[in-house]
Amino acid sequence: MRKLAVAAFGGNALLQSGQKGTIDEQEKNAFETSEKLMVLIREKNYNLVVTHGNGPQVGNLLLNNTAGNKLYGLPEMPLDICVAYSQGFIGYVIEQQLRNVLMEHDLDRDIITIITQVLVNKDDEAFNNPTKPIGPFYSKEEADKISVETGSVFREDPRGRGWRKVVASPRPLVINNKKSIEKIAREGTIVVAVGGGGIPVFYKQENKLQGIDAVIDKDLASALLASQINADKFFILTDVSKVCLNYNTPQEKTLDRMNIAEARRYLAEGHFAEGSMAPKIRAAIYFVEHSGKDAIITKTTKLGIDDGGTRIVMV
Amino acid sequence: MRKLAVAAFGGNALLQSGQKGTIDEQEKNAFETSEKLMVLIREKNYNLVVTHGNGPQVGNLLLNNTAGNKLYGLPEMPLDICVAYSQGFIGYVIEQQLRNVLMEHDLDRDIITIITQVLVNKDDEAFNNPTKPIGPFYSKEEADKISVETGSVFREDPRGRGWRKVVASPRPLVINNKKSIEKIAREGTIVVAVGGGGIPVFYKQENKLQGIDAVIDKDLASALLASQINADKFFILTDVSKVCLNYNTPQEKTLDRMNIAEARRYLAEGHFAEGSMAPKIRAAIYFVEHSGKDAIITKTTKLGIDDGGTRIVMV
Repeated sequence: MRKLAVAAFGGNALLQSGQKGTIDEQEKNAFETSEKLMVLIREKNYNLVVTHGNGPQVGNLLLNNTAGNKLYGLPEMPLDICVAYSQGFIGYVIEQQLRNVLMEHDLDRDIITIITQVLVNKDDEAFNNPTKPIGPFYSKEEADKISVETGSVFREDPRGRGWRKVVASPRPLVINNKKSIEKIAREGTIVVAVGGGGIPVFYKQENKLQGIDAVIDKDLASALLASQINADKFFILTDVSKVCLNYNTPQEKTLDRMNIAEARRYLAEGHFAEGSMAPKIRAAIYFVEHSGKDAIITKTTKLGIDDGGTRIVMV
Repeated sequence: MRKLAVAAFGGNALLQSGQKGTIDEQEKNAFETSEKLMVLIREKNYNLVVTHGNGPQVGNLLLNNTAGNKLYGLPEMPLDICVAYSQGFIGYVIEQQLRNVLMEHDLDRDIITIITQVLVNKDDEAFNNPTKPIGPFYSKEEADKISVETGSVFREDPRGRGWRKVVASPRPLVINNKKSIEKIAREGTIVVAVGGGGIPVFYKQENKLQGIDAVIDKDLASALLASQINADKFFILTDVSKVCLNYNTPQEKTLDRMNIAEARRYLAEGHFAEGSMAPKIRAAIYFVEHSGKDAIITKTTKLGIDDGGTRIVMV
C-alpha cells in the first residue's frame, strides 16, 4: 500500500516576487513546481494531497474587485468569495500543469481539485485583533468611509503606502470534505485542496454556515488536514533548503532536525520571523504532535533527498 | 441502491435578471434553489450531481478583470481562468447553501465541489465562426486595437451597445474527472461539477493541455457527463414548466412528452430559440440517444412532480 503525503506550497509556487503575474508566468511556475513533485509521485510512490497558498493571487483579485466596482459599478464581493475565486484559478492551473508533467513521464495518475471550506469559530480571539493586511491601499478618508459602511478595520501601512484593511487569521477547526479528500487520495488520485488555507466559514446560527472576512493560515490548515487524514508525511515547502537559527546573521546555523520541544523553544526565542518561517514551524509542531509522524520543511528542489530539509520530530 | 441523477441549473439559479448580483442575492437564490432539490434528495432518494451555468457571473468577472487592468495595471487573465474563478465562486455558494438546507432537513449527506476541465478539439469548426458574445463592450477603435494585439474576434452588438468579443462554443469531448465524479456521487456524496460547461482545454501538442478562449454550452457538457456516468435521470432546469411549440404565440402548445425524432423535427422547424431552449433540446436529445434513458426539461418548482415537465424519450 502506498503511503500518503501532504505537500503544502506557498502562493509563490505560481507567482514569484518580482513577477507581474501573467498567466504565462504562473503556468510556467506551476509546471516547474509539478516537475519537482515527480520525485514524491514516481520515486517515492506516495499518494499525494497538494495544498497551496494564494497571497499574491487573492491580492490581485481583491484589486480587480475594487476596480470593477469603481469603473463599472459592479457589486463588490467579500473576501470569502475572492478566496473561492483563487481556489478555482490556482487549483485549475496546478491540476493542468501537473497533468502535463504526468503525461510527459508516462504516469497514469488522475488529479482532482476540490473547493475547500474550513470552519472557524466566530469567538476566536483573532477576531478581536485583526492583523492580516489584505487588498488595496486607501487614503485615510476612503478607509474611514468604508469602515463606517462595512465595519471593516483599517490600519496604516508601516511603509507609508496608505491605509489597508486588516482581517483576522483565526484557527482552522474542521476541514470540510476531509473524508472525501482522504478516500480519493488513498485510491491513488492526486488531490489539490485547502487552497489559500481554505474558504473561512462559521456558524452564524444553528444549521447556518456563512462565509467570514478572514484569512486562514495555509500551513496551519494544511497541518490540520494532514493530521486528520492520517498522512504519513507532511512537507512544508518554502524557499530555503533548511530551517536556520539566527537566520541571515554571522551566527546562522542550519538545522537538520529538531524535536517539537526544541522547536517551541526556538520560536519563543524569536528565531523565526512572523509571516514567514514562524507559521511553518507552528504547523510542523501541530502535525507532529497530533500524528506522531515527522514533518519536513524544505524547498521543492530538495524534495525526496534524504538530508534535504529540516525534519521536525516528536522527541 | 440509489439511482443517479444529474441536474443542470442555469447561471440564473444564483443571479436572476434584474438583480445586481450582490452576494446576499446570490446566496439567497442558491438557498432557494437548494430547497427545491430536496425533493430529489429526500423524497426520490437520488444520488446527485449538480451542474450549473455561469453566464452572468463570468460576465462580471471579465469586467472586473478589465477594470483591474485599466485602473491598477494588473495582468488580464484569459477566459479559461475567468471560468475557473466562476467555478470556485458558484460551486462554493451552492455547496454552502445546499449544506445549510440539508442541515435544516436533518439529512446527513456530504457535498463536494470539483473544478472541472473539459477537453475540446482545436479543429472544431466552431473556432472558424465564433458566435458567443462575452465580456465588456468596446468602441470600434478599442476593439480593433485589442484584436490586433491578441487575435480576438469582435462583433458589433445588434442593440448598438458597442463592439464585443465573440468566442467559439466548441463541442465538449471529454469531462476530466468523470470517473471520480461518478464514484463519489454513487457513494452518496452530492457532487457540484462542470460549472459554466467546464473550463475549455485542448491539446496544444502531445502531452500538453492548454486552456483556450471558448465557452462550452453547459447543457451539452452536462448531457455528456450524464451519459458518460450512466445517470438514470437528467434534469435540465429552466424558467418554464414545460417545453412549448409556437412559444409566446396564440398557437402555443405545451408538450408533456416528445421522442427524439419529434424533438429534432421541432428544432428544424424553428420552435426553439437559440441561446435559450434550443441548446436544452439538443442536450436532451444527446443524453437520450447515448443513454437510452429519459431527459426532463422543467423548472425547479416542478421537480419530482410526475407530470411536472416535458419528458424527452427515445421512441
